[in-house]
Amino acid sequence: MTSTKYNDDLGMRAAISQASKSYAEGGIPIGAALVSHVNGESTVLAASHNKRMQQNSAILHGETAALEEAGRLKASVYRTCTMYTTLSPCDMCTGAILLYKIPRVVIGENATFKGAEDLLRSRGVEVVNLDSEECKEMLRRFISEKPEEWNEDIGEV
Amino acid sequence: MTSTKYNDDLGMRAAISQASKSYAEGGIPIGAALVSHVNGESTVLAASHNKRMQQNSAILHGETAALEEAGRLKASVYRTCTMYTTLSPCDMCTGAILLYKIPRVVIGENATFKGAEDLLRSRGVEVVNLDSEECKEMLRRFISEKPEEWNEDIGEV
Ligand SMILES: [Ca+2]
Ligand SMILES: [Ca+2]
Ligand SMILES: [Zn+2]
Ligand SMILES: [Zn+2]
Repeated sequence: MTSTKYNDDLGMRAAISQASKSYAEGGIPIGAALVSHVNGESTVLAASHNKRMQQNSAILHGETAALEEAGRLKASVYRTCTMYTTLSPCDMCTGAILLYKIPRVVIGENATFKGAEDLLRSRGVEVVNLDSEECKEMLRRFISEKPEEWNEDIGEV
Repeated sequence: MTSTKYNDDLGMRAAISQASKSYAEGGIPIGAALVSHVNGESTVLAASHNKRMQQNSAILHGETAALEEAGRLKASVYRTCTMYTTLSPCDMCTGAILLYKIPRVVIGENATFKGAEDLLRSRGVEVVNLDSEECKEMLRRFISEKPEEWNEDIGEV
């Protein structure tokens, strides 16, 4: 009986849960969820997390992993969606969001890393920052424990 | 005994070969190769192709599949590289190239689809277009045979 169009709590909880799972596996704690909003109902289509450590992957970030988990979808489905991600999206994930014309992105935080939010906005994507302490703490803990792996993930080392 | 810094023929042949393999598998004929240039030697680090049809993948385009095939690399390695791709890179693949700060992209053609070349150039990436008839013919044949799959790949249907 909610009157809001977007259930952002549902989406961000799904993303945070994936980030937490990744951390428990020894991986980078960034998660994402692709959520569709149709007739006032928000539905998690897919949720996943960064798999750099777990699969030695160069391209499975939270957002791209969620898109891959969702599988092949029609353009009309992507256009009903919000991408929830615990961290501001990097250039690659920003590009994936633009490719599929996902109209809305909700991020957990951008204090640890600020991605291509300006590019998203310049292309008409709505970007909402929840400034979540939980997201910041999870990632900061990882970075303090494994700084090399973090810098590798953002293309810096 | 070549005096050129980049063996573009080697790189584009590897990309075209992957595109041709993909077509033979019933897939989208777009291939890519990540090639490093060190001390005048060009070395193919990885080559792959679009896997939308073969793996129902939403994120394995030629360039991202080549990056995934290459695995986790240090930033210093990416910076010696050219990404060869039979087609002008889409927003996602452009973002992946920017994430890893790959300094040079050689494309087979951009007549069939023009990607985010302007964004690449604005971020300092060198973009070379070989305007290859072979690349155009391969992709045009696929598009005429399977237009829906092609439009799905570029986020249009
Ligand atoms: Ca990530
Ligand atoms: Ca592609
Ligand atoms: Zn990313
Ligand atoms: Zn692409």
